[in-house]
Amino acid sequence: MRKNYLLTPGPTPLPPEVCQALGKPIIHHRTPQFQAILKEAGEGLKYVFQTQNDVFILTSSGTGAMEAAVANLLSPQDTAITVEGGKFGERWTELCKAYGVGAEVIKVEWGKVVDPSEIEKRLQANPGIKAVFTTLCETSTGVATDIEAIGKIVAKYKAVLVVDAISGLGAIDLKADAWGVDVCVSGSQKGFMLPPGLAFISVSKKAWDLVSASKNPRYYFDLTTARKALQKTDTPFTPAISLVIALVEVLRMMKQEGLENIFKRHSLMASATKSAMKALGLELFAPSAPSEAVTAVNVPAGIDGEKLVKTMRDVYGVTIAGGQSELKGKVFRFAHMGFIEEFDIIAGISCLEKVLKEMGYAFELGAGVKAAEEVFSKK
Amino acid sequence: MRKNYLLTPGPTPLPPEVCQALGKPIIHHRTPQFQAILKEAGEGLKYVFQTQNDVFILTSSGTGAMEAAVANLLSPQDTAITVEGGKFGERWTELCKAYGVGAEVIKVEWGKVVDPSEIEKRLQANPGIKAVFTTLCETSTGVATDIEAIGKIVAKYKAVLVVDAISGLGAIDLKADAWGVDVCVSGSQKGFMLPPGLAFISVSKKAWDLVSASKNPRYYFDLTTARKALQKTDTPFTPAISLVIALVEVLRMMKQEGLENIFKRHSLMASATKSAMKALGLELFAPSAPSEAVTAVNVPAGIDGEKLVKTMRDVYGVTIAGGQSELKGKVFRFAHMGFIEEFDIIAGISCLEKVLKEMGYAFELGAGVKAAEEVFSKK
Repeated sequence: MRKNYLLTPGPTPLPPEVCQALGKPIIHHRTPQFQAILKEAGEGLKYVFQTQNDVFILTSSGTGAMEAAVANLLSPQDTAITVEGGKFGERWTELCKAYGVGAEVIKVEWGKVVDPSEIEKRLQANPGIKAVFTTLCETSTGVATDIEAIGKIVAKYKAVLVVDAISGLGAIDLKADAWGVDVCVSGSQKGFMLPPGLAFISVSKKAWDLVSASKNPRYYFDLTTARKALQKTDTPFTPAISLVIALVEVLRMMKQEGLENIFKRHSLMASATKSAMKALGLELFAPSAPSEAVTAVNVPAGIDGEKLVKTMRDVYGVTIAGGQSELKGKVFRFAHMGFIEEFDIIAGISCLEKVLKEMGYAFELGAGVKAAEEVFSKK
Repeated sequence: MRKNYLLTPGPTPLPPEVCQALGKPIIHHRTPQFQAILKEAGEGLKYVFQTQNDVFILTSSGTGAMEAAVANLLSPQDTAITVEGGKFGERWTELCKAYGVGAEVIKVEWGKVVDPSEIEKRLQANPGIKAVFTTLCETSTGVATDIEAIGKIVAKYKAVLVVDAISGLGAIDLKADAWGVDVCVSGSQKGFMLPPGLAFISVSKKAWDLVSASKNPRYYFDLTTARKALQKTDTPFTPAISLVIALVEVLRMMKQEGLENIFKRHSLMASATKSAMKALGLELFAPSAPSEAVTAVNVPAGIDGEKLVKTMRDVYGVTIAGGQSELKGKVFRFAHMGFIEEFDIIAGISCLEKVLKEMGYAFELGAGVKAAEEVFSKK
């Protein structure tokens, strides 16, 4: 007998309501029954995105919605700013290159957060810049960006602000309208507690003006087609019906818990996790701007980081994530995002302690769990 | 109490094994566990596609894989042939236009099938043509194209043959390698008996040469990236994990039944359906080249076609499809694709009889069901 625990920054665990919804017989998508579902999903997404703008549902991974942003907003020879502080920031640059868009890359040391004034300098120097591409929570490093501060800056220029909120939306605060986020991109398998397969994208009026001017080729991810379909409560192409039906379930759950409570819960989980890591003598990879969706931790000297992750997963059933790209083997990432509460954290920390002990790392068994419990008991 | 029957050309009903697989807790995709699933899925897809070429799994609707074909094979200013005999043939032309590819459109009257020699004429006249885009089963009209004959022709030229087999693959025969299909596109929600959300695409050596020369922008649907990932038994972006897990279930079912038996079953279902329609005095829309995946039937004079479909669905729980675009209200489409056996057909015909009778159409009640039973009893 073995139970499995999922503490990765996507996919995140599915609530039983989601599993049940996914396991139901399928219905046809061009029916009044599915239209009612699409309508409820659209309203629920506006609540989570904190926007009055339309939020489109795409059948793709989050990257598909990132491509939709680049392909619909820009044209070849346009210039955009991309903020690269990890693997997912780099994706914006790669997408711009794929579409012939000049990227002014702001390189940020992995684990550090971008200084918003750096973005303002670039916008001042080049008034032709059409878009600023940023990342809410850089999953690869566990860093959270100050989108509110960046939004205030970008609003003063003609550029639009595009945020990859794939990791983080529905877990940490992002007020799309109040903060001036023109295009916000997210995905189903993180804060939304669903399997991967859906992406979401909101588009402001300022962004629609760019869409009408864009000369990039696009079809499946064309937002103009999506808008025409949405006006008839439809999708341009067959959507991932079962995932949309499950989306309505999670949106109901999220509305019932309330965004403020969801953010508080994630904050508490992050706090307990960080406290536990410190008590185990471990260092955070990004102490200056840690995300409350995922905590990246330096692998201590003398410990094989990849073996740590594999042993937790393959021997004990607790899946956390290792490091990506240049952080491979150097960090592990302990996620506390989505359908996660205190005893998931306790289980994860306990398993981490067990394997660290087996691997010869010196610490007092129980210290991590105790520190987490102390945070939870104070809430 | 009401039971629901789904007799639409996508989505098609889900086997209980699929519902169960979809309702399981999610697993992470960068694990040996998921790699084993991806490997089995890849092998199973090769079996169904009847190919030795790699078959890629994309997280999108089938249209995403159609876009992948156009975006990866061609460059702006290239010329391609598109065969338009319905809504989905037209999609190839739209995709070519979106990517600046010149489309030599072969217009075929809806309900009729393309004459392969028409394709040869165009290829002879313009040796620069790079691709021929066709449709295995035109869902909007219920017509099946003779891909084998077209394949023999296209093989003689430098153009590649691309087939939209979204409707039909895994229901009617298509031997990708033996028939010279260079790129074959399919989707999860038809012959594959899954919810929508996955698309599949196979690529021949001849097609890979075009891919390396293509100058179209692409990222999410880039096949070169997909190939690199597949070599490591991985996907470039987070896949729709739960759908891939369910895919392995249906591929096992399909292997167990065997392709030949699957095709025979679909042929029998089509035969019984057509027989029932004739017995009810109804005419097929496409009698010259009917697909064995879906049967399009002319709505008889004096009957409101849209009301017929709505009543069957909203009053009695039996969902068939109406006509699309220019066929709206003029035909109904009775699908017999995927997880469908004789008593589904009987139920569907019985409901059709019930509603036709209510709507005042003159026929002998039971005549359709009797005709279908006669076909089944002779098998």
